Amino acid sequence: MTDSTDKDHDAAGHNGRAAVVLLSGGLDSMVSAALAAEQGFAVSALTIDYGQRNRRELQSARWIAQALGVTRHEFLSLDLGVFGGSALTDDIAVPKDGAGMTLAASPLSASGDAIPVTYVPARNLVFLSLTLAFAETLGAADIFIGVNALDYSGYPDCRPEFIRSFQETANLATRAGTGKTRFNIHAPLQMLTKAQIAAEAFRLDLDPGLSWSCYDPLANGQACGACDSCRLRRRAFAAIGKSDGLAYAS
Amino acid sequence: MTDSTDKDHDAAGHNGRAAVVLLSGGLDSMVSAALAAEQGFAVSALTIDYGQRNRRELQSARWIAQALGVTRHEFLSLDLGVFGGSALTDDIAVPKDGAGMTLAASPLSASGDAIPVTYVPARNLVFLSLTLAFAETLGAADIFIGVNALDYSGYPDCRPEFIRSFQETANLATRAGTGKTRFNIHAPLQMLTKAQIAAEAFRLDLDPGLSWSCYDPLANGQACGACDSCRLRRRAFAAIGKSDGLAYAS
Repeated sequence: MTDSTDKDHDAAGHNGRAAVVLLSGGLDSMVSAALAAEQGFAVSALTIDYGQRNRRELQSARWIAQALGVTRHEFLSLDLGVFGGSALTDDIAVPKDGAGMTLAASPLSASGDAIPVTYVPARNLVFLSLTLAFAETLGAADIFIGVNALDYSGYPDCRPEFIRSFQETANLATRAGTGKTRFNIHAPLQMLTKAQIAAEAFRLDLDPGLSWSCYDPLANGQACGACDSCRLRRRAFAAIGKSDGLAYAS
Repeated sequence: MTDSTDKDHDAAGHNGRAAVVLLSGGLDSMVSAALAAEQGFAVSALTIDYGQRNRRELQSARWIAQALGVTRHEFLSLDLGVFGGSALTDDIAVPKDGAGMTLAASPLSASGDAIPVTYVPARNLVFLSLTLAFAETLGAADIFIGVNALDYSGYPDCRPEFIRSFQETANLATRAGTGKTRFNIHAPLQMLTKAQIAAEAFRLDLDPGLSWSCYDPLANGQACGACDSCRLRRRAFAAIGKSDGLAYAS
């Protein structure tokens, strides 16, 4: 034992426990996966191909999982497009006028009126449920999701009260949860701004260019630079004076 | 207005509201769908192809939806087999010795030890989450699931406290739930035994032969007659002195 270890971690910093990270391929999921590894978990990852128009994200998930050396990485196909209703899966225009930026920076709306068209119905509930199923078969009790403070203002299924409620339901839903295991849902970026998340990426020695944020990439593979997700990402890296490792069309 | 209608129902018995039923193709889901229709809902159905070894169930779902004249019926593919861990999706033997029968009739175990190998990790949580996503895109606030009293003794995700907790999480997870809509999760078979459910099928003028229960059908398409699900079904119809409309191998 050295000064840098304690009773819960071995000399290599492992805590002897497995965790599953919901890995979309975005910056937030990359940082959240790296934080799980930093906390000593043996990290497995789940990436969900839900028919997102943004296919490049899936390749980013693969690169990130390789870079982090995850234990197991599963891709699950789930055609949420059959339900319809979102600009991320349907032929609905992704906003490019920055209107969602104001929205995303506004205080939490309880009315449900100010939710972006990029909202996918019940997405995080569906994704967390699938991550839980994977965790239960792996014998992992810890689940990481990269939701953060900015998301809360736009997406209902990113709010802390949703994450808490999900944890309770998860423990009632499962064989593991009714036994001695208690599932913990970690949202380590919960209170961070996008700029703080960008800074975390550098502190954790991650290459932000592996991750992808653009909702609406060009045919040549470049990020559009104009959708809300591009705007938020560029503004965050600009705020900390670093490059985000991506080329933009505009 | 006639005597048989009230302010919440039109002359044809419709209540003007849409509901989504989780339709597996089993007897319970058939009765629960018919109860939703009886209550006046315009019923849509969601059937999930999760890689179940029992493929015949999917055909039954199609027949039931046709018989009930549902508004919209969607099939969603979800390969839960990639996670592994259940006799219903993996190459794990389905028990044929009736051991699960005692288990299913025993009081609820809080230890999590007495859960059948036919348990699919977090299945109902995953399925209800998907049903919620479908309901939200349809603008439906009511969801029906056919879990019942017998299930409670074996499967954690069939218990009333799970259903209640899911409803709360659902309302925090969604755009609809944060607005004026409140989602209701209906489990109309909650307190019924299998024999009572069989009797409901006849009361509702349903053909039980459209539904399917066997976990492990023979190559010739017959129900095995020996798995827990066959045993429970046969015992229920025998108890009410009716035929269940299926041929059995043994």
